[in-house]
Amino acid sequence: MKQKNKTILDTSTDARTLARKLIDEANFAAIAVLEPGTGIPHVSRIAVATDNNGHLIFLGSELSNHTKAIIKDPRVSIMVGEPGKGDPLAHPRITLIGEIEKIERSSKERDLLRAPYLERHPKAKLYIDFGDFHFFRLHIKRANLNGGFGKAYELTREDIL
Amino acid sequence: MKQKNKTILDTSTDARTLARKLIDEANFAAIAVLEPGTGIPHVSRIAVATDNNGHLIFLGSELSNHTKAIIKDPRVSIMVGEPGKGDPLAHPRITLIGEIEKIERSSKERDLLRAPYLERHPKAKLYIDFGDFHFFRLHIKRANLNGGFGKAYELTREDIL
Repeated sequence: MKQKNKTILDTSTDARTLARKLIDEANFAAIAVLEPGTGIPHVSRIAVATDNNGHLIFLGSELSNHTKAIIKDPRVSIMVGEPGKGDPLAHPRITLIGEIEKIERSSKERDLLRAPYLERHPKAKLYIDFGDFHFFRLHIKRANLNGGFGKAYELTREDIL
Repeated sequence: MKQKNKTILDTSTDARTLARKLIDEANFAAIAVLEPGTGIPHVSRIAVATDNNGHLIFLGSELSNHTKAIIKDPRVSIMVGEPGKGDPLAHPRITLIGEIEKIERSSKERDLLRAPYLERHPKAKLYIDFGDFHFFRLHIKRANLNGGFGKAYELTREDIL
């Protein structure tokens, strides 16, 4: 846990509500992983949804760079919250930090995730059952919420779930 | 250099043109850095522009997490290209991999970057001259271009600049 400094605000109910809203409404996200071999932080796009417990989930192909990286090292961060018009830094976003769990294709869990994911991403029915596609779930440990200039918060897992 | 496999297409003129377009039109981006202390890949938002040589630049506060991380380890990746409607994964995006150079406030370079940055981000005039804000420039080494499903390319620095 980093020491809080004066640039980090005390966590409020509004901050927790905003965090939850950003996660629940997210359609896509940017995921940062460690590139295998180089250790370079690598960012790419994922399409996301939430499961019945409010955890962020996504569908990934074994062929994609981030999937290969996650299997090697499950530590990631995922940013959600898209800017509207005007200064892009004035719009809220949150970086969720945690570890990724791969959902095995043979597990019952997969069936539970399929429906909420397809509800959010109907076009994914074209490839959701391809053999190289798997579900992944984020286990959040902490988060950095940025509600706009001068509105930075450090949230815990409990603040979000 | 990673060995190319069948999922990576041969780099075409169209791919190079798309890469350049994504960079030139970007208003904001997701940057992945290594979190100091933990080594966790951390993603956050930056507002971007390009300098006169087509290099990606951004303005960052010393107080932000990604600025602190970059000063410790300049290896980053930056993703640009925002989705439109429909499946977010069907829209093109590019991950630029390289190292960040901090532009000193006292350098002449800063004056050259100020105008193009403010042209792209007029509201930044509210804080661009604050003492804790600095310009940063990405020195691209390579890139992963994703033009949509089945359209993955691995680009070199020369393909982009």
